[in-house]
Amino acid sequence: MEKQKDTRHWKIKLHEIIYEADTPNGKLFDIILILAIIASIILVMLESVESFDNKYHDFLNISEWIITILFTIEYIARIISIKQPRKYIFSFYGVIDLLATIPKYLSLIFVGTHALVALRALRLLRVFRILKLTRYLGASITLAGALKASRIKIAVFLFVVLLLTVILGTVMYLIEGPKNGFTSIPYSMYWAIVTLTTVGYGDISPHTPFGQFIASIVMILGYGIIAIPTGIVTSEMTRKDSIHTNTLHCKHCGTDKHIDNATFCNNCGKILHDE
Amino acid sequence: MEKQKDTRHWKIKLHEIIYEADTPNGKLFDIILILAIIASIILVMLESVESFDNKYHDFLNISEWIITILFTIEYIARIISIKQPRKYIFSFYGVIDLLATIPKYLSLIFVGTHALVALRALRLLRVFRILKLTRYLGASITLAGALKASRIKIAVFLFVVLLLTVILGTVMYLIEGPKNGFTSIPYSMYWAIVTLTTVGYGDISPHTPFGQFIASIVMILGYGIIAIPTGIVTSEMTRKDSIHTNTLHCKHCGTDKHIDNATFCNNCGKILHDE
Amino acid sequence: MEKQKDTRHWKIKLHEIIYEADTPNGKLFDIILILAIIASIILVMLESVESFDNKYHDFLNISEWIITILFTIEYIARIISIKQPRKYIFSFYGVIDLLATIPKYLSLIFVGTHALVALRALRLLRVFRILKLTRYLGASITLAGALKASRIKIAVFLFVVLLLTVILGTVMYLIEGPKNGFTSIPYSMYWAIVTLTTVGYGDISPHTPFGQFIASIVMILGYGIIAIPTGIVTSEMTRKDSIHTNTLHCKHCGTDKHIDNATFCNNCGKILHDE
Amino acid sequence: MEKQKDTRHWKIKLHEIIYEADTPNGKLFDIILILAIIASIILVMLESVESFDNKYHDFLNISEWIITILFTIEYIARIISIKQPRKYIFSFYGVIDLLATIPKYLSLIFVGTHALVALRALRLLRVFRILKLTRYLGASITLAGALKASRIKIAVFLFVVLLLTVILGTVMYLIEGPKNGFTSIPYSMYWAIVTLTTVGYGDISPHTPFGQFIASIVMILGYGIIAIPTGIVTSEMTRKDSIHTNTLHCKHCGTDKHIDNATFCNNCGKILHDE
Repeated sequence: MEKQKDTRHWKIKLHEIIYEADTPNGKLFDIILILAIIASIILVMLESVESFDNKYHDFLNISEWIITILFTIEYIARIISIKQPRKYIFSFYGVIDLLATIPKYLSLIFVGTHALVALRALRLLRVFRILKLTRYLGASITLAGALKASRIKIAVFLFVVLLLTVILGTVMYLIEGPKNGFTSIPYSMYWAIVTLTTVGYGDISPHTPFGQFIASIVMILGYGIIAIPTGIVTSEMTRKDSIHTNTLHCKHCGTDKHIDNATFCNNCGKILHDE
Repeated sequence: MEKQKDTRHWKIKLHEIIYEADTPNGKLFDIILILAIIASIILVMLESVESFDNKYHDFLNISEWIITILFTIEYIARIISIKQPRKYIFSFYGVIDLLATIPKYLSLIFVGTHALVALRALRLLRVFRILKLTRYLGASITLAGALKASRIKIAVFLFVVLLLTVILGTVMYLIEGPKNGFTSIPYSMYWAIVTLTTVGYGDISPHTPFGQFIASIVMILGYGIIAIPTGIVTSEMTRKDSIHTNTLHCKHCGTDKHIDNATFCNNCGKILHDE
Repeated sequence: MEKQKDTRHWKIKLHEIIYEADTPNGKLFDIILILAIIASIILVMLESVESFDNKYHDFLNISEWIITILFTIEYIARIISIKQPRKYIFSFYGVIDLLATIPKYLSLIFVGTHALVALRALRLLRVFRILKLTRYLGASITLAGALKASRIKIAVFLFVVLLLTVILGTVMYLIEGPKNGFTSIPYSMYWAIVTLTTVGYGDISPHTPFGQFIASIVMILGYGIIAIPTGIVTSEMTRKDSIHTNTLHCKHCGTDKHIDNATFCNNCGKILHDE
Repeated sequence: MEKQKDTRHWKIKLHEIIYEADTPNGKLFDIILILAIIASIILVMLESVESFDNKYHDFLNISEWIITILFTIEYIARIISIKQPRKYIFSFYGVIDLLATIPKYLSLIFVGTHALVALRALRLLRVFRILKLTRYLGASITLAGALKASRIKIAVFLFVVLLLTVILGTVMYLIEGPKNGFTSIPYSMYWAIVTLTTVGYGDISPHTPFGQFIASIVMILGYGIIAIPTGIVTSEMTRKDSIHTNTLHCKHCGTDKHIDNATFCNNCGKILHDE
């Protein structure tokens, strides 16, 4: 309420625009930033399409310089306007911002090096910035919460899948062998994952009748296994709405379903435990 | 109740038949319309099968003229019988009805043009008419409601999938490269979607061991991610159904959850409603 | 209780063995019948494997005659022992039993005809007999019940899938066209189903960038759509279990579904238990 | 509580280290064992990769001898330290431990035999040891419990899938026939499973229009069927957790989560509503 337009230093104003989203200018900055990031991502993509790159090379080059200069200005502004620049520079987003800015400058030094393709892709990392700016965080926290709450179950599930992959990969390697495309155990394990997850590229598939029989079992297994993560996430999401009960038996009236931590019976009002 | 057979104008009668479904004639009209639309859709399909078109070209041609004339009569009747023809003509269904009618007439003007294939497909748009006439709307509204209620979660989910697609597509483009079929980032993203959704055409698949390792992780990710929309929709549907209770408020004790059709309050035993 | 061992007619005894499963002999008959059916199914399968048929032709032939004679005896016994033979002969299982028995006899008349392959497959129909004899019917009824209860939702779902298939099939036919393998609208619809259901054979896949973009949307759609049948069945199954009601029988009015912990009957308002 | 450090026999100490996990030494032993098993599994995998085996043959050979000797020492130590060695030797894990140890010794006798590849894979069986040592058993028991509780439903489900596979395999064999790749009924059944489970390798796919129509139905069926195991597992998992509560606020103590229809507060025992 006390943010009146007094003659503050321009650094404070800059800080407000860049780091806060409450003022109209702050919001405008966020929107422009998101659009710039999306534009930069699309540029990286288009550049990777050879036919497009050949045709519009100059347009892509100029656009990238514009984006790079914009990011550079933003990076410098962020350092200037913050009180502890070091903290920002070495933070997760600080490193990403730097890595997303430098590729084009490096391309001046290492002309024509192919390694720059990978470097350019670094700009895609800024996509996480969008994530930070997202206003839908409420819903995503719910999703993340459901995943976090069931992380042990998910770990057990992944361990079982890994175990199955090792066993099935080895079995199929022994049954089918290199002559049918199962050239090694790791490659057979790759096949097992492709099959268990019902992706089924078809780059390797069993050729012997016995191999096809085992593969059929693997598929039905995978079909059933898919139910487990679904069950975990669904029950976690549904649980949010419901509430846990213990199975304490009320000595007085026999009711046996009470909310966790309940001290008194909800049916007759008598005390539940005496410890 | 006052719809006796008085000497109304034929326009009103026509309006009743076309726009309402309460009278036997109105129902008959709806059924004939649906059958005509289905017939017209099947005709467009059959026409696209070259071998069939060569054999039964005349039959298809005549059938289409019949359907087109029927649709023309219906379109004119709709305009005549309505009070505000302009409102209908520029409405969603009005435009569709027109677009679905004209292709055959246009084929007289632009003889032999290939663009007509696309035009003919416009007739398929009438399929939405069936949607409008469907009597199962009750159930579909429930489905649509479940989807609508969880639209923010679905948006977050789609955003996460898009983010994963961008990252995975770029990573695989860098690992596999054009020589293994991952010719550009957009094409690698197409691969990422094909894999994440467990479709797995096999038109592109990783060839390097490291690429196959990353692909395996992508598949297991996709396997887990599929649990999320299922969890969202299921928890939304379960919530709806597992109410089974109405929200009647007991005047005597204030309890507000009762089994549907309950007459007496299950908490205090007093009567629930006085009708 | 009155089924003592009196000197009944052998027909009645035969009826007991064949049509009932309470006596040891009846149970034995059922088990032998199931084994014979399974053996007959395996024989049909093995016969279709050319390399196996060439090697063990005589063994397969003799085995089939044995099975055929067994089925013939059973068929005759069923007709003799039942009071209304006509009712059995023209019943669903009566017709199946006959169709499953005759192929081998017909093979004597039409020697070497290829149509007999299809005829032989008729024997597989007896698999339904096993279904009838299954003791797990309790659980399968629950499954069938869940499916039946949500049949309208499933119908709407199938209608939406069909609609999507028609629209997507046409769109892809127009985008990709015959030169990229999408030779006709019905064939494009086949592709749409292969993709929406995440099967993804790869026999047809989009080649143009725009086609691949549309395909990506189709896959993500399919990914989301798979949540709907799961949601339907799960919410239906959960509803059954999460009755939230006990099965207390109201002594006064006979209503037998009450919310857990209900003290008063929600139908007549009288007290439910006296403990 | 009485396990003080007295001068026990070394056998007892060895037993404590190997068979128990309460002491620091016991824990250390478990961790080393798991690492050794994982190392041994990775060795077997690497060995199956021909190019890797050619390059680092000596390194792999030496590493395997080290692992084999470690396992041998462990095996002997297990026999010495236990009171009833015979019971261990003929137990499940005893046999696995032996089978996982001997392959390298056998390779000295049968030099260059290819059968040793399979023998070497026996070492992978030790992976089950890890399973035994897992500390996540709590969560996996929940998963196993959910699967066990719904084993009849799962059996019915698998039976229905098998039945569908037999029928669809036969139908497709008759429609498509050997000339389109459906060379036998068992092979057609393999196709039916590949399709029903939405794996879709594409090694066999229907070529006739009618076959593609049937295949489309199979895919949609598979799409729906996948909902059933998910529904089973989810409803089983949800059932465990779910009891409904209302959000009534206790006037006396402020607790706001109570079982539906609760009359008394489960926290303070006072009556919940007075309206």
